[in-house]
Amino acid sequence: MSAPFATVAIVGLGLIGSSIARAIRQSLPDTRITGYDRNADVCARAEAIGLCDSYYTRFGPELAEAQLVILCVPVGAMASAASAMAPNLSPDAIISDVGSCKASVLAALRSALPDAIIVPAHPVAGTENSGPESGFASLFKGRWCILTPEIDADANACARVAAFWQALGAEVETMDAAHHDLVLAVTSHLPHLIAYTIVGTASDLEGVTQSEVIKYSAGGFRDFTRIAASDPVMWRDVFLSNKDAVLEMLQRFSEDLSALQRAIRWDKGEELEELFTRTRTIRRSIIEQGQDDAKPDFGREHK
Amino acid sequence: MSAPFATVAIVGLGLIGSSIARAIRQSLPDTRITGYDRNADVCARAEAIGLCDSYYTRFGPELAEAQLVILCVPVGAMASAASAMAPNLSPDAIISDVGSCKASVLAALRSALPDAIIVPAHPVAGTENSGPESGFASLFKGRWCILTPEIDADANACARVAAFWQALGAEVETMDAAHHDLVLAVTSHLPHLIAYTIVGTASDLEGVTQSEVIKYSAGGFRDFTRIAASDPVMWRDVFLSNKDAVLEMLQRFSEDLSALQRAIRWDKGEELEELFTRTRTIRRSIIEQGQDDAKPDFGREHK
Repeated sequence: MSAPFATVAIVGLGLIGSSIARAIRQSLPDTRITGYDRNADVCARAEAIGLCDSYYTRFGPELAEAQLVILCVPVGAMASAASAMAPNLSPDAIISDVGSCKASVLAALRSALPDAIIVPAHPVAGTENSGPESGFASLFKGRWCILTPEIDADANACARVAAFWQALGAEVETMDAAHHDLVLAVTSHLPHLIAYTIVGTASDLEGVTQSEVIKYSAGGFRDFTRIAASDPVMWRDVFLSNKDAVLEMLQRFSEDLSALQRAIRWDKGEELEELFTRTRTIRRSIIEQGQDDAKPDFGREHK
Repeated sequence: MSAPFATVAIVGLGLIGSSIARAIRQSLPDTRITGYDRNADVCARAEAIGLCDSYYTRFGPELAEAQLVILCVPVGAMASAASAMAPNLSPDAIISDVGSCKASVLAALRSALPDAIIVPAHPVAGTENSGPESGFASLFKGRWCILTPEIDADANACARVAAFWQALGAEVETMDAAHHDLVLAVTSHLPHLIAYTIVGTASDLEGVTQSEVIKYSAGGFRDFTRIAASDPVMWRDVFLSNKDAVLEMLQRFSEDLSALQRAIRWDKGEELEELFTRTRTIRRSIIEQGQDDAKPDFGREHK
């Protein structure tokens, strides 16, 4: 397959940006990669591991050569990054991003770049680690990448961005930005919010020490600490940018939690058992569809 | 090391009971294992994989030979199992269990067996799977096993139970039952309750289909589905048996969640970032203390 883009600019060389660079090297070796990060230390670290072909801490005339520019910065920083790149962009360049909220990002990009070709994307993949060293080429394999183009978007541009993500191993789906934000509020944003909350609650008790929480975390708590170790700035921005959908899902969750609380208080064993039986089948479907490992305990090693 | 017990009776051949049997075979090969399960099908499946030396669906005179009897049934079934075994127990036998709540189980065992030597235990280990096929010998390696003996418990009996668990690879800690129940309410019961709730919430939305929830679960949601796939009856009993501590922790969690909800609604980005930074350090401690895998994404394979 010929590469969908000869030159790709990656703006932000953290977990996702550096994973894209590695995946390009592996699957699209003819594609030239220019890497941008406003943090000079991050650029130097990326260069030390040879992520890209060239590195810049600010946009300059070289940006005009990029046929695809992917913004991999926290969603709250998309607007300023887009404004900063505007003077040097080629009018034919396709602008994309990897943000976890799409309506607010699309609005920010459109406002900064009124005439640009914009195809927003969200690869639903990641780990709890951050920084250029934490990326890896196979991060997107078998994961979904959601495109949320505007209704009158250039079909050819969308097809090229889809081909790009497929080349990196992802499956591509298209939906409108508002629906994306509702779906991701459930499958990603609410889980992160809850994980952050419970880890906070557990670390702030007078009757139980933090050392006990750590020691006995294998009872279930440790599962939550993984996503609660995700990048603080990235997640701060996600919650503020997808506020309405997150608050809506949070409200539903709180209602359901109150119902369960009441069932426990009033010894409604059957109600509990009914829910706990129902939730079991969802995990089975996730595994069947290849979205999680079938191995027990996430395949953690017991040795 | 000589085996702490010549004959061990395991009552309930599910995940934990069958893991104990396998760990005994591996680490204490001279110990004779008698297996009990009131479900004849479970007994037959356990026999098919050779878990124990003999199998029974009810207690009989053979029970008198057991020097250690470990109850591995749901905590709500401990009282009836203990009553059923009473007529055939040796007066010298040590009675133990693996229940996730200790105050209620200790009361149930003491009431059914007023004169028995009782040393309650809780190995803080498990997976989301159930049944005799799902156990494995290394489940307890490097995990903590908490003993919660009565204040006037036989010190020699406690030492033998501790030696038994150490032989299976666990580290042993002793605390009183009420404190255990408070600690585990945070590190195990509350996480399970929250996971069950969010999986229920996500499967019951009108704007997002269940197929979308499954498809995009790699955004974080799938992590919660693992513990929400745990045994429904076991967990129903845990919440009803440790009601006070669970409701107390749930109340604190709900307060913290409301505070976060308010921070999102009022754009308090600094508050969010501060919490998200704090929670990151707890994961680091859990990994440093060997209670979770250091590999990103729990070491899930990306291929």
